[in-house]
Amino acid sequence: MKTVSTDPKWFADGRDVSSVDVADRSWQYGDGLFETIAIRSGKARLLDWHVERLQIGCRRLGIGPVPDSYLYDVVAGALRQEPSRSQFATLKLVVTAGSSPRGYRRSSESEPRVFVGLFPSQPIPAACYRDGVAVRRLATRLAEQPALAGIKSLNRLEQVLARREWDGDDLFEGLTLDTSGRLICGTMSNVFLFDGDRLLTPDLSRAGVNGIMRRKVLETLSTMGRDVDVADIDAGAADRCTEMFLTNSQYGIVPVTELDGRPLRPGVTTRSVMQLLGDAEFPEIAA
Amino acid sequence: MKTVSTDPKWFADGRDVSSVDVADRSWQYGDGLFETIAIRSGKARLLDWHVERLQIGCRRLGIGPVPDSYLYDVVAGALRQEPSRSQFATLKLVVTAGSSPRGYRRSSESEPRVFVGLFPSQPIPAACYRDGVAVRRLATRLAEQPALAGIKSLNRLEQVLARREWDGDDLFEGLTLDTSGRLICGTMSNVFLFDGDRLLTPDLSRAGVNGIMRRKVLETLSTMGRDVDVADIDAGAADRCTEMFLTNSQYGIVPVTELDGRPLRPGVTTRSVMQLLGDAEFPEIAA
Repeated sequence: MKTVSTDPKWFADGRDVSSVDVADRSWQYGDGLFETIAIRSGKARLLDWHVERLQIGCRRLGIGPVPDSYLYDVVAGALRQEPSRSQFATLKLVVTAGSSPRGYRRSSESEPRVFVGLFPSQPIPAACYRDGVAVRRLATRLAEQPALAGIKSLNRLEQVLARREWDGDDLFEGLTLDTSGRLICGTMSNVFLFDGDRLLTPDLSRAGVNGIMRRKVLETLSTMGRDVDVADIDAGAADRCTEMFLTNSQYGIVPVTELDGRPLRPGVTTRSVMQLLGDAEFPEIAA
Repeated sequence: MKTVSTDPKWFADGRDVSSVDVADRSWQYGDGLFETIAIRSGKARLLDWHVERLQIGCRRLGIGPVPDSYLYDVVAGALRQEPSRSQFATLKLVVTAGSSPRGYRRSSESEPRVFVGLFPSQPIPAACYRDGVAVRRLATRLAEQPALAGIKSLNRLEQVLARREWDGDDLFEGLTLDTSGRLICGTMSNVFLFDGDRLLTPDLSRAGVNGIMRRKVLETLSTMGRDVDVADIDAGAADRCTEMFLTNSQYGIVPVTELDGRPLRPGVTTRSVMQLLGDAEFPEIAA
């Protein structure tokens, strides 16, 4: 039997790498972007949308251009080199602004660098899909920064600080508000909630990451004819909500059955979306 | 004649390094802090205050503890190993949260790493001190994030974006406002300005970096018996101001003689502070 190493495997320019140049701006300033992509049965799930978001980020930060074809090639190359790891894995695709002399100013010679990391991964327990998960609102607030909102840059200290607020397994995810008190997202997920009959998901134009699975769920809800309001969500709506679910590109979608200690009950809409996704590209969702 | 390489030289654990572990959280999330310290005649200027700010940052982010003595030792070690570079140089001291598996959560095994980079440096032209410099307000705004304000974390994309707003040498520095429109700082400096007789410097509790040279200038002004208001500074105060200066740990202090194209004139207070600093630890300030 072939054993698969539990260590991640990183590539750049088609070669194994274990380190990043000390002059790379990613390390110095977080000057770069990343995607974490679900690998299922040797394929990168929703890869087109990940590449699209990465390119939006590159344009916003002024990095590149990096041709789409190059990004597709490096992903395909990593999967080809490691077929035994690619049945169920997480691929991390990183684009950095490259190296430059010291200082915030990028050099005209700075060339973007692309790294691919292939990480062994496990599905979340089936009980999370079936019985739901517990979440609570965290104390760490997200700054309102339209210039960085929506994209997935390498500046992630807010998420690191938020993730330090709990340690055990009793909490599946923590929800973060912005500094004005609007509900924005989880540390690594997007959120949908029901305020009465209204289905809402936070507007992400000031903070948060515009999740790939959020987009997939919005599309799925649209095919179901279900309206979703992309809106500012205040504390009241979160207090009142009776139903909530989380989305993330690795696990897809999970219902929330406990919010700040208060029980919630997944209703027919949540279960229908899960069913549709489980029947399609997301077999691990045991709807 | 011995030539000194213009390349920076990096050390970690007393050894030369040219790269950072691909699992290091500094690269993945900007999970770390840094200081840029002026090296003059083999000595690290205002080192105690740099170490103090770094430790405040470490505590705020929950990194370490890293003993003060270790930080002093790595700085002294770098200077000892490279005496020929240490007459006039910039030392970059970086503390990272160390390596961990993928994910925002730090591992209990994550051990902080300390890197020291020694960069060749040049004084700014004497004309900057004598004739002053031109600055303008930039379009890039700083988010209001009390959790990260004041410290010098590795999440610096706002400064990178701000620095992209100009390219030539006609502008010495750009000033950034926060998302509410308050004047905060330059991309790599702090700012002091006169609103009538009132001497002001921005409050940095929501955004900006609490500069070491800002602290030195506040102390110097205090010994002169000159009051400074650490305050919120709105656009009006910046529009009205007749005198302004910038501070930075590398160049010390420079007067601003042009703000958004409008001429300013350094007055007796600015010249007196420059004189006092130039007579003390800052000989390059030709007051």
